[in-house]
Amino acid sequence: MAFPKHVRLVEVGPRDGLQNEPEPITTATKLALIDRLGAAGIRYIEAASFVSPKWVPQMADHREVMTGITRRDGVTYAALTPNLKGLEAALECGVEEVAVFGAASEAFSQKNINCSVAESLARFEPVLERAQQAGVRVRGYVSCVLGCPYEGEIAPAKVAEVSKALYEMGCYEVSLGDTIGVGTPLKAKRMLEAVSHEVPMAQLAAHFHDTYGQALANLYAVLEEGIAVVDSSVAGLGGCPYAKGASGNVASEDVIYLLNGLGIETGIDLDALAATGTWITQAIGRPNRSKVGVALAAK
Amino acid sequence: MAFPKHVRLVEVGPRDGLQNEPEPITTATKLALIDRLGAAGIRYIEAASFVSPKWVPQMADHREVMTGITRRDGVTYAALTPNLKGLEAALECGVEEVAVFGAASEAFSQKNINCSVAESLARFEPVLERAQQAGVRVRGYVSCVLGCPYEGEIAPAKVAEVSKALYEMGCYEVSLGDTIGVGTPLKAKRMLEAVSHEVPMAQLAAHFHDTYGQALANLYAVLEEGIAVVDSSVAGLGGCPYAKGASGNVASEDVIYLLNGLGIETGIDLDALAATGTWITQAIGRPNRSKVGVALAAK
Repeated sequence: MAFPKHVRLVEVGPRDGLQNEPEPITTATKLALIDRLGAAGIRYIEAASFVSPKWVPQMADHREVMTGITRRDGVTYAALTPNLKGLEAALECGVEEVAVFGAASEAFSQKNINCSVAESLARFEPVLERAQQAGVRVRGYVSCVLGCPYEGEIAPAKVAEVSKALYEMGCYEVSLGDTIGVGTPLKAKRMLEAVSHEVPMAQLAAHFHDTYGQALANLYAVLEEGIAVVDSSVAGLGGCPYAKGASGNVASEDVIYLLNGLGIETGIDLDALAATGTWITQAIGRPNRSKVGVALAAK
Repeated sequence: MAFPKHVRLVEVGPRDGLQNEPEPITTATKLALIDRLGAAGIRYIEAASFVSPKWVPQMADHREVMTGITRRDGVTYAALTPNLKGLEAALECGVEEVAVFGAASEAFSQKNINCSVAESLARFEPVLERAQQAGVRVRGYVSCVLGCPYEGEIAPAKVAEVSKALYEMGCYEVSLGDTIGVGTPLKAKRMLEAVSHEVPMAQLAAHFHDTYGQALANLYAVLEEGIAVVDSSVAGLGGCPYAKGASGNVASEDVIYLLNGLGIETGIDLDALAATGTWITQAIGRPNRSKVGVALAAK
Protein backbone atom coordinates (compact mmCIF):
# COMPACT_ATOMS: atom_id res chain seq x y z
CA MET A 1 0.00 0.00 0.00
CA ALA A 2 1.27 3.41 -0.94
CA PHE A 3 -1.49 5.94 -0.37
CA PRO A 4 -0.73 9.46 -1.60
CA LYS A 5 -0.15 12.06 1.13
CA HIS A 6 -2.28 14.59 -0.68
CA VAL A 7 -5.18 14.23 -3.11
CA ARG A 8 -6.37 16.94 -5.47
CA LEU A 9 -10.14 16.99 -5.82
CA VAL A 10 -11.56 18.02 -9.19
CA GLU A 11 -15.06 19.34 -8.51
CA VAL A 12 -17.29 18.73 -11.52
CA GLY A 13 -20.64 19.67 -9.95
CA PRO A 14 -21.19 23.00 -11.72
CA ARG A 15 -20.63 21.39 -15.14
CA ASP A 16 -21.11 17.60 -15.11
CA GLY A 17 -23.50 17.84 -12.16
CA LEU A 18 -25.83 20.46 -13.61
CA GLN A 19 -25.61 19.92 -17.37
CA ASN A 20 -28.53 17.49 -17.61
CA GLU A 21 -30.92 19.45 -15.38
CA PRO A 22 -34.05 20.03 -17.45
CA GLU A 23 -35.20 23.22 -15.67
CA PRO A 24 -33.06 26.34 -16.26
CA ILE A 25 -30.74 27.17 -13.38
CA THR A 26 -29.89 30.87 -13.15
CA THR A 27 -26.37 32.09 -13.81
CA ALA A 28 -26.45 33.66 -10.33
CA THR A 29 -27.09 30.26 -8.73
CA LYS A 30 -24.25 28.69 -10.72
CA LEU A 31 -21.89 31.50 -9.71
CA ALA A 32 -22.91 31.20 -6.05
CA LEU A 33 -22.23 27.45 -6.20
CA ILE A 34 -18.79 27.99 -7.73
CA ASP A 35 -18.01 30.62 -5.10
CA ARG A 36 -19.08 28.43 -2.18
CA LEU A 37 -17.04 25.52 -3.51
CA GLY A 38 -13.95 27.72 -3.66
CA ALA A 39 -14.66 29.01 -0.14
CA ALA A 40 -14.80 25.39 1.10
CA GLY A 41 -11.21 24.94 -0.06
CA ILE A 42 -11.68 23.26 -3.44
CA ARG A 43 -8.80 24.22 -5.71
CA TYR A 44 -10.07 22.93 -9.06
CA ILE A 45 -13.59 23.60 -10.31
CA GLU A 46 -14.99 22.62 -13.68
CA ALA A 47 -17.24 25.60 -14.12
CA ALA A 48 -18.82 25.44 -17.59
CA SER A 49 -19.07 23.66 -20.91
CA PHE A 50 -18.55 25.47 -24.22
CA VAL A 51 -20.83 23.28 -26.27
CA SER A 52 -23.72 24.25 -28.49
CA PRO A 53 -26.84 25.21 -26.49
CA LYS A 54 -28.67 23.04 -29.01
CA TRP A 55 -27.05 19.99 -27.40
CA VAL A 56 -26.73 21.15 -23.79
CA PRO A 57 -29.20 24.01 -23.12
CA GLN A 58 -28.31 24.15 -19.42
CA MET A 59 -24.77 25.30 -20.31
CA ALA A 60 -25.95 28.06 -22.70
CA ASP A 61 -24.75 30.76 -20.27
CA HIS A 62 -21.15 29.50 -20.35
CA ARG A 63 -19.77 32.96 -21.23
CA GLU A 64 -21.68 34.66 -18.40
CA VAL A 65 -20.56 31.98 -15.93
CA MET A 66 -16.92 31.98 -17.01
CA THR A 67 -16.60 35.77 -16.94
CA GLY A 68 -18.80 36.22 -13.85
CA ILE A 69 -16.69 34.17 -11.42
CA THR A 70 -15.12 36.09 -8.54
CA ARG A 71 -11.77 34.37 -8.84
CA ARG A 72 -9.89 33.14 -5.78
CA ASP A 73 -6.13 32.83 -5.61
CA GLY A 74 -4.95 29.30 -6.15
CA VAL A 75 -8.21 28.04 -7.66
CA THR A 76 -8.37 26.80 -11.25
CA TYR A 77 -11.66 27.40 -13.06
CA ALA A 78 -11.84 25.07 -16.04
CA ALA A 79 -14.26 24.52 -18.92
CA LEU A 80 -15.11 21.68 -21.26
CA THR A 81 -14.29 22.56 -24.87
CA PRO A 82 -15.10 19.72 -27.25
CA ASN A 83 -14.00 21.57 -30.39
CA LEU A 84 -12.07 24.55 -31.73
CA LYS A 85 -15.14 26.80 -31.76
CA GLY A 86 -15.77 26.08 -28.08
CA LEU A 87 -12.12 26.63 -27.24
CA GLU A 88 -12.02 30.01 -28.99
CA ALA A 89 -15.10 31.14 -27.05
CA ALA A 90 -13.60 29.88 -23.79
CA LEU A 91 -10.31 31.68 -24.49
CA GLU A 92 -12.23 34.93 -25.07
CA CYS A 93 -13.64 34.48 -21.56
CA GLY A 94 -10.16 34.14 -20.07
CA VAL A 95 -10.34 30.43 -19.25
CA GLU A 96 -7.17 29.06 -17.60
CA GLU A 97 -7.64 25.42 -18.38
CA VAL A 98 -9.87 23.33 -20.64
CA ALA A 99 -10.88 19.73 -21.11
CA VAL A 100 -11.68 17.44 -24.02
CA PHE A 101 -13.89 14.40 -23.77
CA GLY A 102 -13.16 11.04 -25.45
CA ALA A 103 -14.48 7.52 -24.99
CA ALA A 104 -13.02 4.03 -24.66
CA SER A 105 -16.13 2.61 -26.34
CA GLU A 106 -16.82 2.88 -30.07
CA ALA A 107 -20.58 2.54 -29.60
CA PHE A 108 -20.63 5.23 -26.90
CA SER A 109 -18.55 7.58 -29.03
CA GLN A 110 -20.90 7.12 -31.98
CA LYS A 111 -24.07 7.63 -29.92
CA ASN A 112 -22.69 10.43 -27.74
CA ILE A 113 -20.64 12.54 -30.18
CA ASN A 114 -21.55 11.02 -33.56
CA CYS A 115 -18.09 9.90 -34.59
CA SER A 116 -15.63 7.06 -34.06
CA VAL A 117 -13.07 7.15 -31.26
CA ALA A 118 -10.31 7.76 -33.84
CA GLU A 119 -12.28 10.61 -35.41
CA SER A 120 -12.87 12.20 -32.00
CA LEU A 121 -9.15 12.07 -31.24
CA ALA A 122 -8.38 13.66 -34.61
CA ARG A 123 -10.81 16.49 -33.79
CA PHE A 124 -9.01 17.16 -30.51
CA GLU A 125 -5.65 17.74 -32.21
CA PRO A 126 -6.35 21.31 -33.36
CA VAL A 127 -7.91 22.04 -29.95
CA LEU A 128 -4.71 20.90 -28.23
CA GLU A 129 -2.53 22.89 -30.67
CA ARG A 130 -4.51 26.10 -30.23
CA ALA A 131 -4.63 25.70 -26.44
CA GLN A 132 -0.87 25.22 -26.32
CA GLN A 133 -0.39 28.39 -28.38
CA ALA A 134 -2.58 30.24 -25.89
CA GLY A 135 -0.71 28.78 -22.90
CA VAL A 136 -3.80 26.95 -21.64
CA ARG A 137 -3.48 23.44 -20.25
CA VAL A 138 -5.77 20.68 -21.50
CA ARG A 139 -7.19 17.84 -19.45
CA GLY A 140 -8.44 14.72 -21.24
CA TYR A 141 -11.44 12.63 -20.22
CA VAL A 142 -11.94 9.02 -21.19
CA SER A 143 -15.46 7.71 -20.62
CA CYS A 144 -16.73 4.13 -20.24
CA VAL A 145 -13.43 2.87 -18.80
CA LEU A 146 -15.16 0.11 -16.78
CA GLY A 147 -18.15 -0.56 -19.00
CA CYS A 148 -20.39 0.92 -21.66
CA PRO A 149 -24.20 1.22 -21.70
CA TYR A 150 -24.20 -0.12 -25.30
CA GLU A 151 -21.17 -2.45 -25.54
CA GLY A 152 -20.99 -3.82 -21.99
CA GLU A 153 -17.43 -4.84 -21.04
CA ILE A 154 -14.56 -2.64 -22.23
CA ALA A 155 -11.05 -4.07 -22.60
CA PRO A 156 -8.44 -2.37 -20.37
CA ALA A 157 -6.17 -2.31 -23.47
CA LYS A 158 -8.70 -0.07 -25.25
CA VAL A 159 -8.75 2.35 -22.30
CA ALA A 160 -4.94 2.38 -22.30
CA GLU A 161 -4.86 3.08 -26.05
CA VAL A 162 -7.20 6.08 -25.86
CA SER A 163 -5.49 7.42 -22.71
CA LYS A 164 -2.10 7.16 -24.39
CA ALA A 165 -3.37 9.02 -27.47
CA LEU A 166 -4.70 11.89 -25.31
CA TYR A 167 -1.49 12.03 -23.29
CA GLU A 168 0.76 12.00 -26.35
CA MET A 169 -1.41 14.67 -27.95
CA GLY A 170 -0.55 16.94 -25.03
CA CYS A 171 -3.17 16.41 -22.33
CA TYR A 172 -1.31 16.96 -19.05
CA GLU A 173 -3.77 14.70 -17.20
CA VAL A 174 -6.15 11.93 -18.24
CA SER A 175 -9.30 11.38 -16.19
CA LEU A 176 -10.61 7.81 -16.28
CA GLY A 177 -14.40 7.80 -16.17
CA ASP A 178 -16.60 4.91 -15.04
CA THR A 179 -19.49 6.67 -16.77
CA ILE A 180 -22.20 4.20 -15.77
CA GLY A 181 -20.74 3.23 -12.40
CA VAL A 182 -20.59 -0.51 -13.10
CA GLY A 183 -16.99 -1.07 -11.94
CA THR A 184 -15.80 -2.96 -8.89
CA PRO A 185 -12.41 -2.64 -7.14
CA LEU A 186 -10.40 -5.40 -8.83
CA LYS A 187 -11.66 -4.39 -12.27
CA ALA A 188 -10.71 -0.79 -11.50
CA LYS A 189 -7.23 -1.90 -10.44
CA ARG A 190 -6.72 -4.01 -13.57
CA MET A 191 -7.85 -1.18 -15.82
CA LEU A 192 -5.55 1.26 -14.03
CA GLU A 193 -2.64 -1.13 -14.29
CA ALA A 194 -3.09 -1.33 -18.07
CA VAL A 195 -3.37 2.46 -18.43
CA SER A 196 -0.42 3.21 -16.15
CA HIS A 197 1.87 1.29 -18.52
CA GLU A 198 1.14 4.01 -21.09
CA VAL A 199 0.56 7.15 -18.98
CA PRO A 200 2.41 7.91 -15.72
CA MET A 201 0.27 7.37 -12.60
CA ALA A 202 0.84 11.00 -11.56
CA GLN A 203 -0.92 12.11 -14.77
CA LEU A 204 -4.04 10.02 -14.15
CA ALA A 205 -7.27 10.84 -12.33
CA ALA A 206 -10.17 8.65 -11.18
CA HIS A 207 -13.65 9.77 -12.21
CA PHE A 208 -15.99 7.22 -10.70
CA HIS A 209 -19.76 7.10 -10.60
CA ASP A 210 -21.75 5.63 -7.74
CA THR A 211 -24.65 4.14 -9.71
CA TYR A 212 -24.14 0.71 -8.12
CA GLY A 213 -22.73 2.08 -4.85
CA GLN A 214 -19.19 0.97 -5.66
CA ALA A 215 -17.45 4.33 -6.18
CA LEU A 216 -15.76 4.65 -2.78
CA ALA A 217 -14.63 1.02 -2.74
CA ASN A 218 -13.20 1.56 -6.24
CA LEU A 219 -11.50 4.78 -5.15
CA TYR A 220 -9.99 3.09 -2.12
CA ALA A 221 -8.58 0.41 -4.42
CA VAL A 222 -7.00 2.88 -6.89
CA LEU A 223 -5.71 5.17 -4.11
CA GLU A 224 -3.77 2.10 -2.94
CA GLU A 225 -2.23 1.99 -6.41
CA GLY A 226 -1.16 5.63 -6.22
CA ILE A 227 -3.98 7.63 -7.83
CA ALA A 228 -3.80 11.16 -6.36
CA VAL A 229 -6.45 13.07 -8.33
CA VAL A 230 -10.16 12.35 -7.86
CA ASP A 231 -13.12 13.83 -9.75
CA SER A 232 -16.38 14.21 -7.84
CA SER A 233 -19.55 16.27 -7.64
CA VAL A 234 -20.90 18.06 -4.57
CA ALA A 235 -24.08 16.32 -3.28
CA GLY A 236 -23.56 13.74 -6.05
CA LEU A 237 -25.19 16.23 -8.44
CA GLY A 238 -25.94 14.83 -11.84
CA GLY A 239 -27.62 11.49 -11.35
CA CYS A 240 -27.16 8.87 -14.03
CA PRO A 241 -28.52 9.81 -17.47
CA TYR A 242 -28.47 6.09 -18.41
CA ALA A 243 -30.66 5.02 -15.44
CA LYS A 244 -33.04 7.83 -14.46
CA GLY A 245 -33.38 8.25 -10.71
CA ALA A 246 -30.14 6.38 -10.02
CA SER A 247 -26.90 7.91 -8.72
CA GLY A 248 -24.23 9.32 -11.01
CA ASN A 249 -21.08 11.17 -9.95
CA VAL A 250 -19.68 10.12 -6.60
CA ALA A 251 -20.40 12.82 -4.00
CA SER A 252 -17.47 15.08 -3.10
CA GLU A 253 -18.45 15.01 0.58
CA ASP A 254 -18.29 11.20 0.69
CA VAL A 255 -14.87 11.24 -1.02
CA ILE A 256 -13.51 13.81 1.47
CA TYR A 257 -14.82 11.76 4.42
CA LEU A 258 -12.99 8.71 3.05
CA LEU A 259 -9.77 10.66 2.44
CA ASN A 260 -9.92 12.27 5.91
CA GLY A 261 -10.28 8.81 7.42
CA LEU A 262 -7.26 7.57 5.48
CA GLY A 263 -5.19 10.53 6.71
CA ILE A 264 -4.87 11.94 3.19
CA GLU A 265 -4.77 15.74 3.00
CA THR A 266 -7.06 17.68 0.67
CA GLY A 267 -7.22 21.17 2.19
CA ILE A 268 -11.02 21.00 2.01
CA ASP A 269 -13.39 21.93 4.85
CA LEU A 270 -15.91 19.05 4.95
CA ASP A 271 -18.54 20.95 6.94
CA ALA A 272 -18.47 23.89 4.51
CA LEU A 273 -18.63 21.49 1.57
CA ALA A 274 -21.59 19.59 3.09
CA ALA A 275 -23.40 22.87 3.76
CA THR A 276 -22.87 23.76 0.09
CA GLY A 277 -24.37 20.42 -0.94
CA THR A 278 -27.41 20.98 1.28
CA TRP A 279 -27.85 24.48 -0.11
CA ILE A 280 -27.55 23.64 -3.84
CA THR A 281 -29.85 20.60 -3.66
CA GLN A 282 -32.49 22.72 -1.94
CA ALA A 283 -31.96 25.53 -4.46
CA ILE A 284 -32.55 23.27 -7.47
CA GLY A 285 -35.01 20.85 -5.80
CA ARG A 286 -32.95 17.69 -6.08
CA PRO A 287 -32.25 14.94 -3.54
CA ASN A 288 -28.91 15.21 -1.76
CA ARG A 289 -27.05 12.10 -2.96
CA SER A 290 -24.18 12.54 -0.51
CA LYS A 291 -24.62 10.15 2.42
CA VAL A 292 -22.23 12.31 4.44
CA GLY A 293 -24.27 15.38 3.52
CA VAL A 294 -27.51 13.75 4.62
CA ALA A 295 -25.98 12.35 7.84
CA LEU A 296 -24.42 15.67 8.85
CA ALA A 297 -27.64 17.56 8.09
CA ALA A 298 -29.65 15.02 10.17
CA LYS A 299 -27.43 15.30 13.21
CA MET B 1 -4.43 -9.89 -0.64
CA ALA B 2 -6.24 -13.06 0.29
CA PHE B 3 -9.91 -12.67 -0.56
CA PRO B 4 -12.12 -15.51 0.63
CA LYS B 5 -13.52 -17.75 -2.14
CA HIS B 6 -16.95 -17.76 -0.57
CA VAL B 7 -18.75 -15.27 1.66
CA ARG B 8 -21.73 -16.09 3.84
CA LEU B 9 -24.27 -13.29 3.92
CA VAL B 10 -26.22 -12.78 7.15
CA GLU B 11 -29.45 -11.05 6.18
CA VAL B 12 -30.66 -8.87 9.05
CA GLY B 13 -33.45 -7.02 7.23
CA PRO B 14 -36.45 -8.77 8.84
CA ARG B 15 -35.10 -8.01 12.35
CA ASP B 16 -32.57 -5.16 12.41
CA GLY B 17 -34.11 -3.60 9.30
CA LEU B 18 -37.71 -3.54 10.48
CA GLN B 19 -37.45 -3.23 14.27
CA ASN B 20 -37.53 0.57 14.39
CA GLU B 21 -40.41 1.01 11.93
CA PRO B 22 -43.06 3.05 13.78
CA GLU B 23 -46.08 1.77 11.82
CA PRO B 24 -47.05 -1.88 12.44
CA ILE B 25 -45.95 -4.27 9.70
CA THR B 26 -48.16 -7.35 9.41
CA THR B 27 -46.81 -10.77 10.28
CA ALA B 28 -47.80 -11.86 6.77
CA THR B 29 -45.55 -9.19 5.24
CA LYS B 30 -42.64 -10.23 7.47
CA LEU B 31 -43.14 -13.88 6.54
CA ALA B 32 -43.34 -13.03 2.83
CA LEU B 33 -40.08 -11.07 3.13
CA ILE B 34 -38.35 -13.96 4.88
CA ASP B 35 -39.62 -16.37 2.23
CA ARG B 36 -38.49 -14.21 -0.69
CA LEU B 37 -35.03 -13.79 0.87
CA GLY B 38 -34.70 -17.56 1.17
CA ALA B 39 -35.88 -17.98 -2.42
CA ALA B 40 -33.16 -15.53 -3.56
CA GLY B 41 -30.54 -17.90 -2.14
CA ILE B 42 -29.83 -16.33 1.24
CA ARG B 43 -28.83 -19.06 3.68
CA TYR B 44 -28.92 -17.16 6.98
CA ILE B 45 -31.82 -14.90 7.95
CA GLU B 46 -32.23 -13.09 11.25
CA ALA B 47 -35.99 -13.35 11.42
CA ALA B 48 -37.14 -11.94 14.78
CA SER B 49 -36.20 -10.49 18.13
CA PHE B 50 -37.45 -11.97 21.41
CA VAL B 51 -37.46 -8.73 23.37
CA SER B 52 -40.25 -7.13 25.34
CA PRO B 53 -42.88 -5.47 23.09
CA LYS B 54 -42.62 -2.58 25.55
CA TRP B 55 -39.12 -1.86 24.15
CA VAL B 56 -39.55 -2.97 20.55
CA PRO B 57 -43.26 -3.03 19.62
CA GLN B 58 -42.52 -3.91 15.99
CA MET B 59 -41.14 -7.30 17.10
CA ALA B 60 -44.14 -8.16 19.31
CA ASP B 61 -45.21 -10.92 16.87
CA HIS B 62 -41.90 -12.78 17.25
CA ARG B 63 -43.67 -16.07 18.12
CA GLU B 64 -45.99 -15.85 15.10
CA VAL B 65 -43.07 -15.00 12.81
CA MET B 66 -40.76 -17.69 14.14
CA THR B 67 -43.40 -20.43 13.97
CA GLY B 68 -44.93 -19.17 10.71
CA ILE B 69 -41.86 -19.49 8.51
CA THR B 70 -42.07 -22.03 5.69
CA ARG B 71 -38.61 -23.41 6.27
CA ARG B 72 -36.26 -24.10 3.39
CA ASP B 73 -33.54 -26.72 3.51
CA GLY B 74 -30.14 -25.28 4.23
CA VAL B 75 -31.44 -21.95 5.55
CA THR B 76 -30.87 -20.91 9.16
CA TYR B 77 -33.61 -18.76 10.69
CA ALA B 78 -32.18 -16.99 13.74
CA ALA B 79 -33.55 -14.71 16.45
CA LEU B 80 -32.13 -12.14 18.82
CA THR B 81 -32.52 -13.23 22.47
CA PRO B 82 -31.09 -10.67 24.87
CA ASN B 83 -31.96 -12.62 28.02
CA LEU B 84 -33.03 -15.99 29.37
CA LYS B 85 -36.71 -15.15 29.12
CA GLY B 86 -36.35 -14.33 25.44
CA LEU B 87 -34.31 -17.45 24.84
CA GLU B 88 -36.91 -19.71 26.47
CA ALA B 89 -39.64 -18.19 24.30
CA ALA B 90 -37.49 -18.61 21.20
CA LEU B 91 -36.73 -22.23 22.07
CA GLU B 92 -40.46 -22.91 22.40
CA CYS B 93 -40.80 -21.66 18.83
CA GLY B 94 -38.17 -24.11 17.60
CA VAL B 95 -35.44 -21.55 16.88
CA GLU B 96 -32.23 -23.10 15.49
CA GLU B 97 -29.85 -20.31 16.35
CA VAL B 98 -29.91 -17.19 18.52
CA ALA B 99 -27.89 -14.04 19.04
CA VAL B 100 -26.89 -11.83 21.95
CA PHE B 101 -26.03 -8.19 21.64
CA GLY B 102 -23.15 -6.49 23.47
CA ALA B 103 -21.36 -3.17 23.04
CA ALA B 104 -17.76 -1.97 22.92
CA SER B 105 -18.86 1.35 24.41
CA GLU B 106 -19.76 1.81 28.09
CA ALA B 107 -21.95 4.83 27.37
CA PHE B 108 -23.81 3.01 24.58
CA SER B 109 -24.37 -0.03 26.78
CA GLN B 110 -25.77 2.15 29.58
CA LYS B 111 -28.08 4.12 27.27
CA ASN B 112 -29.14 1.16 25.12
CA ILE B 113 -29.55 -1.66 27.63
CA ASN B 114 -29.25 0.11 30.99
CA CYS B 115 -26.20 -1.72 32.29
CA SER B 116 -22.42 -1.71 32.01
CA VAL B 117 -20.59 -3.80 29.40
CA ALA B 118 -19.42 -6.18 32.14
CA GLU B 119 -22.97 -6.53 33.48
CA SER B 120 -24.32 -7.25 30.00
CA LEU B 121 -21.71 -9.97 29.51
CA ALA B 122 -22.64 -11.50 32.87
CA ARG B 123 -26.29 -11.57 31.78
CA PHE B 124 -25.37 -13.46 28.62
CA GLU B 125 -23.73 -16.32 30.54
CA PRO B 126 -26.97 -18.10 31.53
CA VAL B 127 -28.29 -17.52 27.98
CA LEU B 128 -25.21 -19.24 26.53
CA GLU B 129 -25.46 -22.09 29.05
CA ARG B 130 -29.14 -22.72 28.36
CA ALA B 131 -28.65 -22.49 24.58
CA GLN B 132 -25.81 -25.01 24.74
CA GLN B 133 -28.03 -27.40 26.75
CA ALA B 134 -30.68 -27.04 24.04
CA GLY B 135 -28.13 -27.59 21.26
CA VAL B 136 -28.70 -24.10 19.82
CA ARG B 137 -25.76 -22.08 18.56
CA VAL B 138 -25.28 -18.49 19.75
CA ARG B 139 -23.93 -15.62 17.70
CA GLY B 140 -22.52 -12.58 19.50
CA TYR B 141 -22.86 -8.98 18.33
CA VAL B 142 -20.54 -6.19 19.38
CA SER B 143 -21.85 -2.70 18.60
CA CYS B 144 -19.95 0.61 18.26
CA VAL B 145 -16.75 -1.09 17.08
CA LEU B 146 -15.67 1.96 15.04
CA GLY B 147 -17.27 4.73 17.08
CA CYS B 148 -20.06 5.51 19.52
CA PRO B 149 -22.79 8.18 19.28
CA TYR B 150 -22.04 9.16 22.90
CA GLU B 151 -18.32 8.45 23.43
CA GLY B 152 -16.90 9.10 19.96
CA GLU B 153 -13.74 7.07 19.31
CA ILE B 154 -13.60 3.50 20.63
CA ALA B 155 -10.24 1.82 21.27
CA PRO B 156 -9.64 -1.34 19.19
CA ALA B 157 -8.42 -2.98 22.44
CA LYS B 158 -11.89 -2.50 23.96
CA VAL B 159 -13.53 -4.15 20.92
CA ALA B 160 -11.06 -7.03 21.19
CA GLU B 161 -11.78 -7.43 24.91
CA VAL B 162 -15.56 -7.67 24.47
CA SER B 163 -15.22 -9.94 21.40
CA LYS B 164 -12.91 -12.25 23.33
CA ALA B 165 -15.36 -12.43 26.24
CA LEU B 166 -18.24 -13.40 23.91
CA TYR B 167 -16.09 -15.96 22.10
CA GLU B 168 -14.81 -17.53 25.32
CA MET B 169 -18.34 -17.63 26.69
CA GLY B 170 -19.27 -19.85 23.75
CA CYS B 171 -20.41 -17.62 20.89
CA TYR B 172 -19.37 -19.47 17.73
CA GLU B 173 -19.17 -16.18 15.79
CA VAL B 174 -18.72 -12.55 16.75
CA SER B 175 -20.23 -9.89 14.50
CA LEU B 176 -18.42 -6.55 14.62
CA GLY B 177 -20.89 -3.69 14.23
CA ASP B 178 -20.09 -0.18 13.05
CA THR B 179 -23.43 0.89 14.52
CA ILE B 180 -23.27 4.53 13.42
CA GLY B 181 -21.34 3.96 10.19
CA VAL B 182 -18.50 6.34 11.01
CA GLY B 183 -15.64 3.98 10.15
CA THR B 184 -13.22 4.22 7.24
CA PRO B 185 -11.12 1.41 5.73
CA LEU B 186 -7.84 1.77 7.64
CA LYS B 187 -9.68 2.17 10.94
CA ALA B 188 -11.70 -0.95 10.13
CA LYS B 189 -8.50 -2.86 9.34
CA ARG B 190 -6.80 -1.75 12.56
CA MET B 191 -9.83 -2.71 14.65
CA LEU B 192 -10.03 -6.09 12.94
CA GLU B 193 -6.32 -6.68 13.49
CA ALA B 194 -6.74 -6.11 17.23
CA VAL B 195 -9.79 -8.39 17.44
CA SER B 196 -8.26 -11.17 15.35
CA HIS B 197 -5.48 -11.53 17.94
CA GLU B 198 -8.19 -12.71 20.37
CA VAL B 199 -10.77 -14.41 18.11
CA PRO B 200 -9.89 -16.40 14.97
CA MET B 201 -10.68 -14.55 11.72
CA ALA B 202 -12.96 -17.41 10.61
CA GLN B 203 -15.16 -16.72 13.65
CA LEU B 204 -15.61 -13.01 12.88
CA ALA B 205 -18.22 -11.18 10.81
CA ALA B 206 -18.40 -7.59 9.53
CA HIS B 207 -21.61 -5.69 10.28
CA PHE B 208 -21.11 -2.29 8.70
CA HIS B 209 -23.49 0.61 8.33
CA ASP B 210 -23.49 2.99 5.38
CA THR B 211 -24.43 6.21 7.20
CA TYR B 212 -21.41 8.03 5.76
CA GLY B 213 -21.29 5.99 2.54
CA GLN B 214 -18.17 4.08 3.65
CA ALA B 215 -19.58 0.57 4.18
CA LEU B 216 -18.48 -1.02 0.90
CA ALA B 217 -15.01 0.52 1.05
CA ASN B 218 -14.71 -0.80 4.62
CA LEU B 219 -15.96 -4.24 3.55
CA TYR B 220 -13.46 -4.34 0.69
CA ALA B 221 -10.69 -3.56 3.17
CA VAL B 222 -11.68 -6.29 5.66
CA LEU B 223 -12.34 -8.86 2.91
CA GLU B 224 -8.70 -8.31 1.97
CA GLU B 225 -7.85 -9.31 5.55
CA GLY B 226 -9.86 -12.52 5.32
CA ILE B 227 -13.33 -11.68 6.65
CA ALA B 228 -15.76 -14.18 5.08
CA VAL B 229 -19.08 -13.39 6.81
CA VAL B 230 -20.94 -10.16 6.09
CA ASP B 231 -24.12 -8.85 7.73
CA SER B 232 -26.41 -6.70 5.58
CA SER B 233 -30.03 -5.69 5.10
CA VAL B 234 -32.05 -5.94 1.89
CA ALA B 235 -32.72 -2.45 0.44
CA GLY B 236 -30.64 -1.05 3.32
CA LEU B 237 -33.76 -1.39 5.51
CA GLY B 238 -33.44 0.20 8.90
CA GLY B 239 -32.01 3.66 8.40
CA CYS B 240 -29.92 5.13 11.19
CA PRO B 241 -31.77 5.66 14.49
CA TYR B 242 -29.00 8.08 15.54
CA ALA B 243 -29.42 10.35 12.49
CA LYS B 244 -33.04 10.25 11.25
CA GLY B 245 -33.30 10.12 7.47
CA ALA B 246 -29.73 8.88 7.07
CA SER B 247 -28.66 5.40 5.95
CA GLY B 248 -28.12 2.52 8.37
CA ASN B 249 -27.37 -1.09 7.47
CA VAL B 250 -25.42 -1.56 4.25
CA ALA B 251 -27.75 -2.89 1.53
CA SER B 252 -27.46 -6.60 0.77
CA GLU B 253 -27.80 -5.93 -2.98
CA ASP B 254 -24.81 -3.55 -2.96
CA VAL B 255 -22.73 -6.09 -1.01
CA ILE B 256 -23.59 -8.88 -3.47
CA TYR B 257 -22.71 -6.64 -6.44
CA LEU B 258 -19.30 -5.97 -4.85
CA LEU B 259 -18.70 -9.65 -4.08
CA ASN B 260 -19.77 -10.70 -7.59
CA GLY B 261 -17.29 -8.19 -9.01
CA LEU B 262 -14.51 -9.59 -6.83
CA GLY B 263 -15.30 -13.13 -8.01
CA ILE B 264 -16.39 -14.19 -4.51
CA GLU B 265 -19.19 -16.77 -4.45
CA THR B 266 -22.32 -16.26 -2.36
CA GLY B 267 -24.93 -18.49 -4.00
CA ILE B 268 -27.32 -15.51 -4.07
CA ASP B 269 -29.38 -14.42 -7.09
CA LEU B 270 -28.85 -10.65 -7.29
CA ASP B 271 -31.87 -9.97 -9.51
CA ALA B 272 -34.21 -11.89 -7.18
CA LEU B 273 -32.71 -10.09 -4.18
CA ALA B 274 -33.11 -6.67 -5.83
CA ALA B 275 -36.73 -7.47 -6.73
CA THR B 276 -37.31 -8.35 -3.06
CA GLY B 277 -35.84 -4.99 -2.03
CA THR B 278 -38.10 -3.15 -4.47
CA TRP B 279 -41.12 -5.07 -3.24
CA ILE B 280 -40.56 -4.63 0.53
CA THR B 281 -39.76 -0.91 0.29
CA GLN B 282 -42.97 -0.38 -1.68
CA ALA B 283 -44.90 -2.56 0.78
CA ILE B 284 -43.80 -0.53 3.82
CA GLY B 285 -43.50 2.87 2.08
CA ARG B 286 -39.77 3.40 2.60
CA PRO B 287 -37.08 4.60 0.19
CA ASN B 288 -34.97 1.88 -1.37
CA ARG B 289 -31.50 2.55 0.06
CA SER B 290 -29.77 0.03 -2.19
CA LYS B 291 -28.07 1.84 -5.08
CA VAL B 292 -27.97 -1.43 -6.99
CA GLY B 293 -31.69 -1.91 -6.31
CA VAL B 294 -32.50 1.58 -7.59
CA ALA B 295 -30.23 1.26 -10.65
CA LEU B 296 -31.63 -2.14 -11.65
CA ALA B 297 -35.22 -0.93 -11.17
CA ALA B 298 -34.48 2.18 -13.31
CA LYS B 299 -33.04 0.20 -16.21
